[in-house]
Amino acid sequence: MSQTAAETAPTAAVLIIGDEILSGRTRDINLHTLARFLAPLGIDLMEARVVGDRQDQIVAALNALRAAHDYVFTTGGIGPTHDDITADAVGAAFGVAVREHPEALALLERRYAPGEFNAARRRMARVPQGGLLIANPVSDAPGFQVENVFVMAGVPKIMEAMLDDVAPRLRTGAPVHSRTLRVSGVGEGAVADILRAAAEARPHLSFGSYPFGFGAGQAAGQGSGEVGTQLVIRGRDLTEVDAAEHDLSETLRSGGVEIAVTSPH
Amino acid sequence: MSQTAAETAPTAAVLIIGDEILSGRTRDINLHTLARFLAPLGIDLMEARVVGDRQDQIVAALNALRAAHDYVFTTGGIGPTHDDITADAVGAAFGVAVREHPEALALLERRYAPGEFNAARRRMARVPQGGLLIANPVSDAPGFQVENVFVMAGVPKIMEAMLDDVAPRLRTGAPVHSRTLRVSGVGEGAVADILRAAAEARPHLSFGSYPFGFGAGQAAGQGSGEVGTQLVIRGRDLTEVDAAEHDLSETLRSGGVEIAVTSPH
Repeated sequence: MSQTAAETAPTAAVLIIGDEILSGRTRDINLHTLARFLAPLGIDLMEARVVGDRQDQIVAALNALRAAHDYVFTTGGIGPTHDDITADAVGAAFGVAVREHPEALALLERRYAPGEFNAARRRMARVPQGGLLIANPVSDAPGFQVENVFVMAGVPKIMEAMLDDVAPRLRTGAPVHSRTLRVSGVGEGAVADILRAAAEARPHLSFGSYPFGFGAGQAAGQGSGEVGTQLVIRGRDLTEVDAAEHDLSETLRSGGVEIAVTSPH
Repeated sequence: MSQTAAETAPTAAVLIIGDEILSGRTRDINLHTLARFLAPLGIDLMEARVVGDRQDQIVAALNALRAAHDYVFTTGGIGPTHDDITADAVGAAFGVAVREHPEALALLERRYAPGEFNAARRRMARVPQGGLLIANPVSDAPGFQVENVFVMAGVPKIMEAMLDDVAPRLRTGAPVHSRTLRVSGVGEGAVADILRAAAEARPHLSFGSYPFGFGAGQAAGQGSGEVGTQLVIRGRDLTEVDAAEHDLSETLRSGGVEIAVTSPH
C-alpha cells in the first residue's frame, strides 16, 4: 500500500523570485512555509530554485520545473513596480499574451479611492491568458494560476494567505509520517552503523540523521550533553514507520544509547 | 568604470542539499549566510537551488551550476551517516573517484579516542580525487574544494566557520553598494512611477521596491503609518549610487512623500 501511495504522490517544486534574496538583503521564509504546507497534503516537494528579477532566468527555471513536476509554486514579483516582472515572465514561459483580467481589475478598482488607481497599480491586474485568479485576502491584488503553476506574492503574510485559495485546487497524496528520536550526548558517528542497518532493513522508509547543539565553541561528539543527534524516520505507511521507530529505539537502548525524546516531527 | 567592474565580477550559485529542507523539518539559513558573505566580496550570487539527498538530483544540479558560474557553494551531506552522499555525488559529477584524503584521515584520527574512530566516521575523510580540504574549526571533519565547487557542511555554525578558509581562494569583484529609502504610509503603487523614471534614467543601477508592515490584519496602501515601502538602489559605482539616492530623495520630497530613514542597506 505504501508503494502505491508513494508512486502516485504528486510532486512539486518551488521557485523563489527576487534580487533581494540573492543580494542577502532579505532572508526567504516562503520556501519553508510552502514545505510545511505541502507535507500534510502528501505532495512531495522535490526541489526549489531561487532566481533574480530577470526574465530569462525566470522563464528557464519555470519551464524546467513545470515540465518535471505536477505543481510549481512561485513567490515574488507580482507588485506594481517596474521590477515586478513575474506576470510577463510566466506569459513568456507559456507563450501566451498577458492581459488585464476583468475580475482582477474590478477587485483593484474597488480597493483604491478615485484618483489612486493609477497605471502602476493597474499593472497588478495583468494575468497571462487563461490564468485563474488566486484570492489575496490581505491586500486584494490577486495571484494567479496558469495550468500547473501557482504564482503568488513575495510578502510572506500575503503568500501564506493565498494558500487558502490554492489548497482546494491540488490533488493530494498520502501524507508522509515522520518520527524523531533525539539522542543527547551522542554524535552522529556513534549511531551511524545502527542507522544504516535500520535503513537497509526497511527500504520503503527514509532515515535521516541531524546533529544538534553546535553552539559557540562546542564541537561534535564531545558528549557534553549539549550536543547530540536527531534520527528521523519518514514514510507513507504509518504502521511501518511506527514499527521502525520501535525497532530503532530498542536497538539504540540495547547498545546503551539513551533516547531523550521521541516526537512526531 | 562601473560597466567594466560589472562585466568582470565573478558569478556564483548556491546548492543546498538535504531532504530536511524540502520536507519542512528544517528552515535553511545557509543561503542567507552565503548571500551576505558574497556581497561584500563583489561576487554576484545569481541563483540557488535546493535538492534532496538523491545522487541524480545533486549531480544534475551541480553540473548545470558549475558550468554556468565561476563558483558553486554547496551545503549539506558530508557527515558520517548513510544519508550523507555529497562526496560521492560530487565525484560522480566530475567523473573522478572518491578516496580517503590522507590529511583528512590524520585530522580525524587525532580527533577521536582510540576505538571511537569507526568506519562511519572514517567516511568523513573521503574526498573526490584532486580535492583540496576546507578547514572546519568547529568539529574538524573538513569540507573540500574540487575546481570551482566548494563543498561545505550543512550545520550552520560549521558552514559559516568554513568560509574563513574559503574566502582567500576566491577572486573578488568590485562590491555592490546599496542605499535604502524608507517611506512610511506610502504604498508601492504610489511611488511606482517615480521609481520607474529613476530606473530608466540610470540603467547601470538596479532599483527595487519592497513593501513592509504587513502585520496581522493590516493591508497595503492604507496609510496607517505601519505600512510603507522600502526603495533600494544598488550598483557598483558609489558616486552614481549616491547621486541616484539624492535625486530620488528630492523627487519624492517634492512630491510630498516623507522619507523616514535612509540607510546603507
